[in-house]
Amino acid sequence: MPQLDLSATSADLTRAICDIPSVSGDERVLADAIHEALRGLTHLKIHRDGDTIVARTDLGRDQRVVIAGHIDTVPINDNVPTREITEDGQPFLWGRGTVDMKAGVAVQLKLAAELTAPRVDITWMWYDHEEVDADLNGLTRLAKTRPDLFAADFAILGEPSDGEVEGGCNGNLRAIVRTRGVRAHSARAWIGENAIHKAAPVLARLAQYEPQEVPVEGLVYREGLNAVRISGGVAGNVIPDLCEVEVNYRFAPSRSAEEAAQHVRDVFTGFDVEVVDLAEGARPGLDAPLAREFVAAVGAQPKPKYGWTDVARFSALGVPAVNYGPGNPHLAHHDEERVAIAQIEDVERGLRAWLTTS
Amino acid sequence: MPQLDLSATSADLTRAICDIPSVSGDERVLADAIHEALRGLTHLKIHRDGDTIVARTDLGRDQRVVIAGHIDTVPINDNVPTREITEDGQPFLWGRGTVDMKAGVAVQLKLAAELTAPRVDITWMWYDHEEVDADLNGLTRLAKTRPDLFAADFAILGEPSDGEVEGGCNGNLRAIVRTRGVRAHSARAWIGENAIHKAAPVLARLAQYEPQEVPVEGLVYREGLNAVRISGGVAGNVIPDLCEVEVNYRFAPSRSAEEAAQHVRDVFTGFDVEVVDLAEGARPGLDAPLAREFVAAVGAQPKPKYGWTDVARFSALGVPAVNYGPGNPHLAHHDEERVAIAQIEDVERGLRAWLTTS
Repeated sequence: MPQLDLSATSADLTRAICDIPSVSGDERVLADAIHEALRGLTHLKIHRDGDTIVARTDLGRDQRVVIAGHIDTVPINDNVPTREITEDGQPFLWGRGTVDMKAGVAVQLKLAAELTAPRVDITWMWYDHEEVDADLNGLTRLAKTRPDLFAADFAILGEPSDGEVEGGCNGNLRAIVRTRGVRAHSARAWIGENAIHKAAPVLARLAQYEPQEVPVEGLVYREGLNAVRISGGVAGNVIPDLCEVEVNYRFAPSRSAEEAAQHVRDVFTGFDVEVVDLAEGARPGLDAPLAREFVAAVGAQPKPKYGWTDVARFSALGVPAVNYGPGNPHLAHHDEERVAIAQIEDVERGLRAWLTTS
Repeated sequence: MPQLDLSATSADLTRAICDIPSVSGDERVLADAIHEALRGLTHLKIHRDGDTIVARTDLGRDQRVVIAGHIDTVPINDNVPTREITEDGQPFLWGRGTVDMKAGVAVQLKLAAELTAPRVDITWMWYDHEEVDADLNGLTRLAKTRPDLFAADFAILGEPSDGEVEGGCNGNLRAIVRTRGVRAHSARAWIGENAIHKAAPVLARLAQYEPQEVPVEGLVYREGLNAVRISGGVAGNVIPDLCEVEVNYRFAPSRSAEEAAQHVRDVFTGFDVEVVDLAEGARPGLDAPLAREFVAAVGAQPKPKYGWTDVARFSALGVPAVNYGPGNPHLAHHDEERVAIAQIEDVERGLRAWLTTS
């Protein structure tokens, strides 16, 4: 089993974590390594559920903060192992997961080990399956088995926010748009009906779609509607009878889940639309006292979070939550994913300062 | 191993052969059963190459005819095992392969066993991998290892022709049309470029395409251009960087392979087009003396063959070749594939009469 040295610099720890591949569904080795690294720390109570690990202080503080990060990544695309590169004279770590979100996880692990007496009690959470269906998300599972672990006054998700504080998040919907036809031998195509050809207007509507920008509590949320998968076909000489286009709609937190689903059905009027995954967004939540203190302490200007993150889960439980982590979110899932080492250090410094200053 | 009884009626033999699944690449069990059924017949010399079986008479006749059929089918779609059904008061065999082309194979096997002294020498061929890439076709392989086996004065392919004689065949081209983009997190789609959206004009051109009808030597060949597969996508939250549309162009035998490829490149001007499979068609070839005798003997009116068949292979070798087999070609590859039992018997009678009358 690979060993993690939590006394290493947060940059070195980021690199070590990135070099343990953990694409969604394949987090076991990394989860074991995290579990093992935390095992000897007497100031933390450890709870493990599958590949999700929770580590809590229990100092009797008045307030408790959840600080959480997911340990899975999207699929690797020739960008592991990590490399150190230089951009505009600054050192960066390049590779899958450096931005989303192993640099954030590294900072959290390092602080979890080192902050034996923080000013608030902390519930650290590292969890699996964030990059796939919400049903599979480690926190979804944990919320069923141990809802008590989510009790907190404030939550910080270490999702990449370029070292800024990003409030709330967009909602996230996935749906399958299906077209159907009739199979036939492709030498006599006129006998069948081509389901792939019938999908032409589906792709045309997507290509022409104009995403909106929606202001919510002073922050502007940018939406998007995209195909993320298409499939159809039986064999090289058969007219296909089914084509599926999977679309992903990211919607402002002012829209309800039902409004979002209706919007997608409206865009694809005339087609069979099945919503397969749907998670509401979260309003910014920056008016909570701990949130205001935190923003002031790290010296950030709050911005909107475009991506859906698990802040929505805490928001739905009544726990104000923000995103704060190293890495430019524009580079998440990008083949050239990379994070400035200085930003990893900045976030470590910001979190450490807020958690240790009374 | 399943046993084939070559003394059964051709309809019963069809049913037995259909109930041994043999989707392309999975022909071994059926090939073994055919091989075993032929093994004891002293009037035939057997040659086996992979899942292709050749059985020849060697009677010293002046003329030799190849009679061939492929033993593979397109994928099964809940239509095996076969059933006997009634349509318009007539008994049919329903199920995958009944039309394309196990009824033809059954007739051939029965006649191969029974005709110990035909008027011409016969080279019977039953071969694998006809429904997939031409590179994989059992006859492509055999033509390399034993080109001598293709020597003949005339060839009959038992492909479904509704009991008529179908001359020549359309050519067959498959190509991949690719669109490329840039991956990004789908929450920030504006950072990436969606390769699936870029395929919208590819599908629109396919949907709008008007296939031609092309007269060749008095027969009219109907063309077609169809998507047979589409794929793209990385994960549910990633803007896809690649979309592939596989298209299948069936072209009249008056067009050369290069003309066909150029036509497809013209249709998809502006896109990356890679031709992955290309087989020229065959002109009707009905002016050969044996072809004329055969048409007269079975009392048929020649028609064009739309689908590409291995007649093109014989045509390219200078052997005139036609298609003659039971089954409505419109029902080949169809989920409701079915053949009239009377037609199986008609084709058996036609072939038997021509092969035994001097």
